[in-house]
Amino acid sequence: MLPNWLIHRAYLTPDRPALITASEQLTFRDLLTRAQTSAYQLAALEVKTGDAVAVLMRNSVEFVVLMHAVNMLGATLVPLNTRLTPTEIAWQLDNVKAKLFITDEDNDPTAQNALTERPLGSSESPLVVDVPPSVPLLQQYALDAVHSIIHTSGTTGHPKGTMLTFGNFWWSSVGSALNLGNHADDRWLACMPLFHVGGLSIAIKSVIYGIPMVLHQSFDAAAVNRAIDEQKVTIVSVVATMLARMLDERGDKPYPASLRCVLLGGGPAPQPLLEACAARGVPVVQTYGLTEAASQVATLAPEDALRKLGSAGKPLFPMEIRIVKDEQSVNAGEMGEILVRGPSVTPGYYNQREASRQALRGGWLHTGDIGYLDDEGFLYVVDRRDDLIISGGENVYPAEVEAVLMAHPDVVEAAVIGVSDEKWGAVPAALIKIRDGAIFDAESLRAFCAARLARFKVPVHIKATNELPRTASGKLVRRVVAAQWVAG
Amino acid sequence: MLPNWLIHRAYLTPDRPALITASEQLTFRDLLTRAQTSAYQLAALEVKTGDAVAVLMRNSVEFVVLMHAVNMLGATLVPLNTRLTPTEIAWQLDNVKAKLFITDEDNDPTAQNALTERPLGSSESPLVVDVPPSVPLLQQYALDAVHSIIHTSGTTGHPKGTMLTFGNFWWSSVGSALNLGNHADDRWLACMPLFHVGGLSIAIKSVIYGIPMVLHQSFDAAAVNRAIDEQKVTIVSVVATMLARMLDERGDKPYPASLRCVLLGGGPAPQPLLEACAARGVPVVQTYGLTEAASQVATLAPEDALRKLGSAGKPLFPMEIRIVKDEQSVNAGEMGEILVRGPSVTPGYYNQREASRQALRGGWLHTGDIGYLDDEGFLYVVDRRDDLIISGGENVYPAEVEAVLMAHPDVVEAAVIGVSDEKWGAVPAALIKIRDGAIFDAESLRAFCAARLARFKVPVHIKATNELPRTASGKLVRRVVAAQWVAG
Repeated sequence: MLPNWLIHRAYLTPDRPALITASEQLTFRDLLTRAQTSAYQLAALEVKTGDAVAVLMRNSVEFVVLMHAVNMLGATLVPLNTRLTPTEIAWQLDNVKAKLFITDEDNDPTAQNALTERPLGSSESPLVVDVPPSVPLLQQYALDAVHSIIHTSGTTGHPKGTMLTFGNFWWSSVGSALNLGNHADDRWLACMPLFHVGGLSIAIKSVIYGIPMVLHQSFDAAAVNRAIDEQKVTIVSVVATMLARMLDERGDKPYPASLRCVLLGGGPAPQPLLEACAARGVPVVQTYGLTEAASQVATLAPEDALRKLGSAGKPLFPMEIRIVKDEQSVNAGEMGEILVRGPSVTPGYYNQREASRQALRGGWLHTGDIGYLDDEGFLYVVDRRDDLIISGGENVYPAEVEAVLMAHPDVVEAAVIGVSDEKWGAVPAALIKIRDGAIFDAESLRAFCAARLARFKVPVHIKATNELPRTASGKLVRRVVAAQWVAG
Repeated sequence: MLPNWLIHRAYLTPDRPALITASEQLTFRDLLTRAQTSAYQLAALEVKTGDAVAVLMRNSVEFVVLMHAVNMLGATLVPLNTRLTPTEIAWQLDNVKAKLFITDEDNDPTAQNALTERPLGSSESPLVVDVPPSVPLLQQYALDAVHSIIHTSGTTGHPKGTMLTFGNFWWSSVGSALNLGNHADDRWLACMPLFHVGGLSIAIKSVIYGIPMVLHQSFDAAAVNRAIDEQKVTIVSVVATMLARMLDERGDKPYPASLRCVLLGGGPAPQPLLEACAARGVPVVQTYGLTEAASQVATLAPEDALRKLGSAGKPLFPMEIRIVKDEQSVNAGEMGEILVRGPSVTPGYYNQREASRQALRGGWLHTGDIGYLDDEGFLYVVDRRDDLIISGGENVYPAEVEAVLMAHPDVVEAAVIGVSDEKWGAVPAALIKIRDGAIFDAESLRAFCAARLARFKVPVHIKATNELPRTASGKLVRRVVAAQWVAG
């Protein structure tokens, strides 16, 4: 058990800034007051221990406040990706049996549509309650209690709800502090969505470290550069496409010395970008992270950035990494599946006992990602899970897109792969086989997908073929599709 | 379970300095190699999981190496105070049923005498083993395994062995990092003995943080000042008498900006000293710590040092403090017993079930210290346990000294109190009642004590009386003795 970390932080350093947005600045005392009020409002709406509270919101003070309010009631936060379609949202709400579904003005139409698909709870916003009921707010957090459920897609076509405990986030925060350091004047900029583990974990680190989170509603290169200059942001979490746009926008102007860490996640970074950062003295810390491990697992310190170009570095202190092939550890330099162990690893997927058992067999998280350790123990991630496409920091799982394509009456088979893209790093592309007699029309297929999938998942390119490469047992070989695509 | 923290640290940052002494500098790789060799030597001497290994040594590389070696075998370290008499050492060895007793050249005569008192194991030094046996060293540390047993004296006259787990030290290190910050260029100077929790915990923090411990064999004001200048020490742990001597020795020369924290423990600091530090810009962080909580429990940041003069500040992040009277929490400003809860609190005293149950009742460590919280929640320690005398950073428990005095054939009753002393902060003094017909001779009583007690425990002043103040139930009222002493 730990003391309720927001209450404890507000006791320790009530007047330090906790949250800075374009329009507001809250101290930890303010944040606690707001969170308590919000908790009473949720309680008036019958939210109780163990209930799932789904949140479909842009980055805002309210989102952070809600997270703490949900925590204090012993309920579970289910942050939803705002780019999802109403159908996808309805599926996730149903999957976690959401007791309450909270949205904001921007996302209200989507939310209403999701509710039309499958009616569920209330989406009234803002919540107004006259008299705070006297609800006991949790004074302590159990490390093994579930803090959030964050959906990650899998190979099955449907997303899985990754359960992350208070302990997962606590250890992740501690591991990050032991690794990146922890300075009294730190200010961590979040321009990634709070519904991603990368964004959400910053909101938690802020409370554990007692430092402000500078929160942007969405990524804007000029706004990020300005915040670094004017608000003395010391750490910023970005993906490669964001960093590239920041450098473009900035031109020749150097970054101030106060910027001590640019935490670069979301897949392998292009070498020219890393070289540009080195040349300009941008303190890039590459990281390999996973929703299932509450964000960062390994990082590469700036001093090793060029010597170990392309590496994701070494694990955070209490985390361990192994590379296995056929469940046996391989030697340095040999490729295999990346396994992760440590206290920030999820206890499993919500309501998916078999998938959890499989992913966590032997006490190690089987990431499905491919990589190797060099002779000094530096991790190189060669390929995210066989099939994972990382497009502008968002994960796209081919199986999910293929399932939608195959739901089209004209499509018999579909293979989705990632093809490289200058702006997004990669974008999804589809190779399909149509039924005999049908007419292939890429545009109408894309429209079909767009009605059912978040925009970043919709294949940018669609081509047709007569036969998809499969193994003897009939398993699709996406690697061959990818090779054919590049060749043809 | 955590990965073996020395192995993991040596993997993460093999080339960073780990330990710096006057004659040697070891990297984490070096430290691991030395510790492994030492572990094999201990294993050859039949040290096994759960065995107690007692160490009577001055501060040295060997001490640190031994700590890690003992850890890796799953054995328990029992650091012994080098100022103890052979009788006291023999008692502690016996109390923990030490399997092995390791000493160094300086302490060998004392060790030999202790062994004469009660023969026990081997004190051969150095240990030499030809071929390292193939012993499996622990690859993981269980958080609830006992790391060390450190004796603290109690009111019963005999010391109790405080068990400190790997988890206690881990959480203490993490709490300290979250509180004092954690900088890549940190160097923590230990000039306090490693057999105290304050010194030992620095050796552990060094490995968890990946920063060097600068280790001095003993406290020397000029050497500490020199290390701050020349070795860029950023944090130093001291007690008030040390700090006063450092300032004296330094004269007007300001401390460099690289010194970011002077962690001041070991009892309340005199106001003039704090004011002198404020005037000279010395970044003093006052701390309230306990062996039973693996060192720091609360600290006062420099920015509050003058506003909250005399306060020990607020608890480290995961720790909680309560003030109770008759087992009920009191209001802000009211005095009571200081209770501490959190993951760095000992699971109990070795082989002292009843004393442990009593000290930890209700899930809170009952420190016996008296204090209050002000309306902002800052802790003020008014009195260490009723009876505790802190003399130059060493704890002196009156009951232990009284027991020795009363063992003298001429002494019928004895009361030991602390009287203020310019050099040591406080020194023990005794008021005794001699048997009818005996002749009071302070010098021979002091000699009697010196043969049985560490020098810092021997009463500096001894006076005689006909009657000691007692309560109706016969309990000695040391406060009244102290008042009489000052008055008379």
